[in-house]
Amino acid sequence: MTRIRDFGVTPGMLPPGSLNAITDVTGVRVGHATLIAGEGALREGEGPVRTGVTAIVPHGGNVFLDKVSAAVCTMNGFGKVAGFEQVRERGTIEAPILLTNTLNVGRVVDAGVAYMLRQNPHIGIENKHGTVNVVVGECNDGFVNDLRGRHVGQAEVWAAIESATDGIVQEGNVGGGTGTQCFQFKGGIGSASRMVHDGRYTVGALVQTNYGMRSEMMILGAPVGQHFIDSHLPEPGPGSIMMVLATDAPMNSRQLGRMARRAAFALGRTGTCGQDGSGDFVIAFSTTSRRAHLTDTLDEAAPRLPESGPMIDPFFLAAVESIEEAILNALVAAETLTGRDGNTLHAIPHDKLRDVLQHYRRIES
Amino acid sequence: MTRIRDFGVTPGMLPPGSLNAITDVTGVRVGHATLIAGEGALREGEGPVRTGVTAIVPHGGNVFLDKVSAAVCTMNGFGKVAGFEQVRERGTIEAPILLTNTLNVGRVVDAGVAYMLRQNPHIGIENKHGTVNVVVGECNDGFVNDLRGRHVGQAEVWAAIESATDGIVQEGNVGGGTGTQCFQFKGGIGSASRMVHDGRYTVGALVQTNYGMRSEMMILGAPVGQHFIDSHLPEPGPGSIMMVLATDAPMNSRQLGRMARRAAFALGRTGTCGQDGSGDFVIAFSTTSRRAHLTDTLDEAAPRLPESGPMIDPFFLAAVESIEEAILNALVAAETLTGRDGNTLHAIPHDKLRDVLQHYRRIES
Amino acid sequence: MTRIRDFGVTPGMLPPGSLNAITDVTGVRVGHATLIAGEGALREGEGPVRTGVTAIVPHGGNVFLDKVSAAVCTMNGFGKVAGFEQVRERGTIEAPILLTNTLNVGRVVDAGVAYMLRQNPHIGIENKHGTVNVVVGECNDGFVNDLRGRHVGQAEVWAAIESATDGIVQEGNVGGGTGTQCFQFKGGIGSASRMVHDGRYTVGALVQTNYGMRSEMMILGAPVGQHFIDSHLPEPGPGSIMMVLATDAPMNSRQLGRMARRAAFALGRTGTCGQDGSGDFVIAFSTTSRRAHLTDTLDEAAPRLPESGPMIDPFFLAAVESIEEAILNALVAAETLTGRDGNTLHAIPHDKLRDVLQHYRRIES
Amino acid sequence: MTRIRDFGVTPGMLPPGSLNAITDVTGVRVGHATLIAGEGALREGEGPVRTGVTAIVPHGGNVFLDKVSAAVCTMNGFGKVAGFEQVRERGTIEAPILLTNTLNVGRVVDAGVAYMLRQNPHIGIENKHGTVNVVVGECNDGFVNDLRGRHVGQAEVWAAIESATDGIVQEGNVGGGTGTQCFQFKGGIGSASRMVHDGRYTVGALVQTNYGMRSEMMILGAPVGQHFIDSHLPEPGPGSIMMVLATDAPMNSRQLGRMARRAAFALGRTGTCGQDGSGDFVIAFSTTSRRAHLTDTLDEAAPRLPESGPMIDPFFLAAVESIEEAILNALVAAETLTGRDGNTLHAIPHDKLRDVLQHYRRIES
Repeated sequence: MTRIRDFGVTPGMLPPGSLNAITDVTGVRVGHATLIAGEGALREGEGPVRTGVTAIVPHGGNVFLDKVSAAVCTMNGFGKVAGFEQVRERGTIEAPILLTNTLNVGRVVDAGVAYMLRQNPHIGIENKHGTVNVVVGECNDGFVNDLRGRHVGQAEVWAAIESATDGIVQEGNVGGGTGTQCFQFKGGIGSASRMVHDGRYTVGALVQTNYGMRSEMMILGAPVGQHFIDSHLPEPGPGSIMMVLATDAPMNSRQLGRMARRAAFALGRTGTCGQDGSGDFVIAFSTTSRRAHLTDTLDEAAPRLPESGPMIDPFFLAAVESIEEAILNALVAAETLTGRDGNTLHAIPHDKLRDVLQHYRRIES
Repeated sequence: MTRIRDFGVTPGMLPPGSLNAITDVTGVRVGHATLIAGEGALREGEGPVRTGVTAIVPHGGNVFLDKVSAAVCTMNGFGKVAGFEQVRERGTIEAPILLTNTLNVGRVVDAGVAYMLRQNPHIGIENKHGTVNVVVGECNDGFVNDLRGRHVGQAEVWAAIESATDGIVQEGNVGGGTGTQCFQFKGGIGSASRMVHDGRYTVGALVQTNYGMRSEMMILGAPVGQHFIDSHLPEPGPGSIMMVLATDAPMNSRQLGRMARRAAFALGRTGTCGQDGSGDFVIAFSTTSRRAHLTDTLDEAAPRLPESGPMIDPFFLAAVESIEEAILNALVAAETLTGRDGNTLHAIPHDKLRDVLQHYRRIES
Repeated sequence: MTRIRDFGVTPGMLPPGSLNAITDVTGVRVGHATLIAGEGALREGEGPVRTGVTAIVPHGGNVFLDKVSAAVCTMNGFGKVAGFEQVRERGTIEAPILLTNTLNVGRVVDAGVAYMLRQNPHIGIENKHGTVNVVVGECNDGFVNDLRGRHVGQAEVWAAIESATDGIVQEGNVGGGTGTQCFQFKGGIGSASRMVHDGRYTVGALVQTNYGMRSEMMILGAPVGQHFIDSHLPEPGPGSIMMVLATDAPMNSRQLGRMARRAAFALGRTGTCGQDGSGDFVIAFSTTSRRAHLTDTLDEAAPRLPESGPMIDPFFLAAVESIEEAILNALVAAETLTGRDGNTLHAIPHDKLRDVLQHYRRIES
Repeated sequence: MTRIRDFGVTPGMLPPGSLNAITDVTGVRVGHATLIAGEGALREGEGPVRTGVTAIVPHGGNVFLDKVSAAVCTMNGFGKVAGFEQVRERGTIEAPILLTNTLNVGRVVDAGVAYMLRQNPHIGIENKHGTVNVVVGECNDGFVNDLRGRHVGQAEVWAAIESATDGIVQEGNVGGGTGTQCFQFKGGIGSASRMVHDGRYTVGALVQTNYGMRSEMMILGAPVGQHFIDSHLPEPGPGSIMMVLATDAPMNSRQLGRMARRAAFALGRTGTCGQDGSGDFVIAFSTTSRRAHLTDTLDEAAPRLPESGPMIDPFFLAAVESIEEAILNALVAAETLTGRDGNTLHAIPHDKLRDVLQHYRRIES
């Protein structure tokens, strides 16, 4: 698995965590279910299938009973994400976050609900146990995948959740990124992290890329897209990007929302102008700012992050840098993929990318 | 089917349309699928079932190709509604609106997507045809229904859409309102309408009630709840309310949003203070402000509604009055229902309600 | 000074604090500067003057250095309020809240800034001390006042702040409510409070009324407006309402925002449908959830309010009831006022109001 | 006056209008009042003064009577902007847009109101003529200016409005940009434009820069800031940025809001991560989508912009490119300025900037 640092670049100014992945945030786990089956002409409901689902599990406990503070940010709302309203209102996430394809959101919501029902037998029966909200993001992988077939079901969702681990995050053509693109190259899942305040806190990012016009593409400031303007340009225009941010700092929902909104600057660094059809969404949570599902006390004290500039600015920088690097990791980890009707998404050629970065003096020659 | 006007009251100041229902807005159609099966103890996945789905179809054409201007308003976001982000961004609705139960949203989204895919074979294949966004609302009917069983599937959703008609709207224990309540009485689906500007335009409302504390309940200004404070009070606290507004005035998304936000005043008139657990949402659309899915011209002219106070205020009043009356219609149309584990939601006793309204001089004695 | 409870009614279910005013929230102080001068024909810049400013001071310390958690809610944004953006972003208020007339907002902002600069000599000089945000609300008192004259300046603003006290709140024709109306009667400033969780916490409200169509007017459920439909109806239509909520519970900005949004239900109880021209805004703060202007620690623990329904619902009810009662207090405290060009806003006749409330059995006969 | 194209670069892909300024949008006019007076030690209320105000007049008519569709976007709300609530609600701007310094907002609002009152003698007197909303943006120029002195008053505001012209826009140390910075260099006012759809429509931008950490600074992809990391770094950290977008396309408020939100991508291209203390705001309007103050018809037809991707994407690109170039124009037009207490903001050295851009092959060597 190639990562952008293998090109000899160290994007940004802050140091990454030990894995340089969202799993550097203690407790966060990531799992994928990847579906690749069939070849040739599209037969709706049969395939070819090039899709999947990625689960980001906020912590190792019961997330419904021990919710994490969270925020969502919609940069461009042309998308079918689920579960956002309750996050805005209550400021918490109470289930694993799931990333899949656009038309599969309904089935993935249902599978996520089913998972939470199994884990929490009182949900939906005793009133005080309420119901459960599942947050799902999506990208359109229909250029290579039988999108209309909606092939991700309960088996895949549960597998993604149950296989989630806290080690290295698989990147590229996996999970929800199996069939997605990035500036009209093959893209997929990417991750990165940054440490702030001398390593005291960590911010991690995981992205599912599907966005970007080739002509706009910039990498670390180099106008890379212009050098690949005619090569392997697939028909489909820009899709979306899902961005997940995690931190172990005790940020509340409002603060997480502020950090989430900085994701736009990371996208800006990559050259996009945010096409109409690109649903760009951010989901952010804190593993240390939690709320119990039920409480019977009016007396709580909780840790919180001060908010003067010197305290919170490093988190904003960390969010921008980790999302930028996660995108670049998705890009260089992805491998060329041929799907339905022979449609192919090409990986960015690493050698030429290295040449271009050298040309613009972004890496040593 | 009893309606609130059968009590001799004419709520509000504006005249209703001929059906006094959302279907007074030309082209709007409503259909229900109602699921009532089984009795006795709850057996998850089997029943008893007391639920359903209601479809509001904006017009008789292909809603995907001929989208209606729309807005959503989240008054209290504790709910699992789907499809809101894209409505906010693009200002349109492109599929029938579906109302069901809380844990069934995923399956209903999927069924709605499947319906639209069947109708529009190019969605998800050719890039310019994009994907489709389905708006779904929900209430928690778990007091009487096997909520965890998620019994509403494709058959029910398609039946609701395909049976939708433009005549009288069935109210009470039907569709998405089959198992829901209203101020801890049995509630369900209700509808009403108002004419504005001397009948030139119509505003229609359809609600799925599940909200309200008995103690707060007011009807037409009378503190009705206080007179029923001990009678038939089920354990479950307040749930949610979904409110759908339709108009044939050429209001754009921003204007529809303004109208939608007035729904809070209708709820206020009924006495609620909006409990934490009550997800209160409004979905509004215009049948005459439309956008084609694809256009190849930069030259469009479209009708639009002027926005000085005298022009738009009647719409605000119409929205408040039609939602208020729709709620009251749901309440008095609903019939006592016993569901899982023998749990019963009682209809409000009409005779005593009449007495109370007379006592407070809201109707002739 | 007449209050609504003098009519023998006890609106709502929760008990009020000892003063039944926003000043029941420990530390909160209220001051008014009232300008009444001149009679006869309007001479722009000279008078007649019927206006003023009301200051709500969150606590007795230096509010800039010791900010209070806060939220704002715009129900209908047709107004010229100031300072809302920073409250949304940072979740704090850092200066006294000021209520004045519509065209006077600029001058009152400037006077509020000047006050804070005097108190905090480092603002605007040393970078870390930053700048200061002043929140100002407004209503249009131009029916009786030389609105274009913008008569509220630094002297009045400073007097309002410096005279603020924690005792009984003056109501009716005072401060920012000097020239305002309420359902086309004379209105003005009103206040009320509620205790929740057995007196452990208090919620207080202060309103500056200027809203409401006579025909819609309801009091405690009685359609009062219909009984005064022809009496003393001034030309001007509905204006705005500013609502300020304070609590001593440790609610964060998001929670305060949730409480603030419930204000719409209070307005709904009074019959309004929220006319286009009525800017309706809520400003809420907590006296016990504070943030220091500068901190040099990353380790903070702070009290916080749990958010399950039983914990937070009483605050929602308290907000609705205290705003409703504050409006009624403004209405019955206000006295008939004649201003520019002989324009008169009439106080609601108390005897007839009592008769109407008796007729509808809202008070004992 | 140096502009970024004088360095031999043509930022972006779209062609600029003939002036490459916001005034390429027909009817838009820009005027400045620049205040430079005094030297030496700060004496509050006296000086030194290094500030001003910039007016953007949407069209040559009476903007109050003939309002322009508009939207605002708050990227980071740490700022004291005025007038945003009414733009959100009503979707229109009805007065010249004014840009000044942070603590001067109150006075500039008041001066703007006074200007509109003079032009419209019925405002505030006859109810149907209502009141007037003035939109004001601001940056903190306190490093060089007597910020606390609030030196911009009615004379300056009226002069800026009345001197507004439709020709070349003065850039750099003028108007609201007199004392502001850009990545800790001297910045100020900048402008640029782009043509879309083969010249049929124009998008223009005007910015008031005050934002950015030197270390993050990127120009056209080159990490310029790293090459100036120790040179002339003033004490003050990042401030804000105000961005104004104009177009002659008939975009409604929602569409303008979508375009305005793309401004974040332009900032991202320049390397910022959006510091806590940087209030970043966008104000967008359309000169051809207008609403009359009063109408007496319910029958209106109006031009509107279709919204499929191919129709609206060019506007998003134009917004990003014109804001990016406007920022660069502000940077290279600005001249070194010494203000209060000898504090100096240095212009970016053009020769070294050229060298750095050559080094990274962004311009020919």
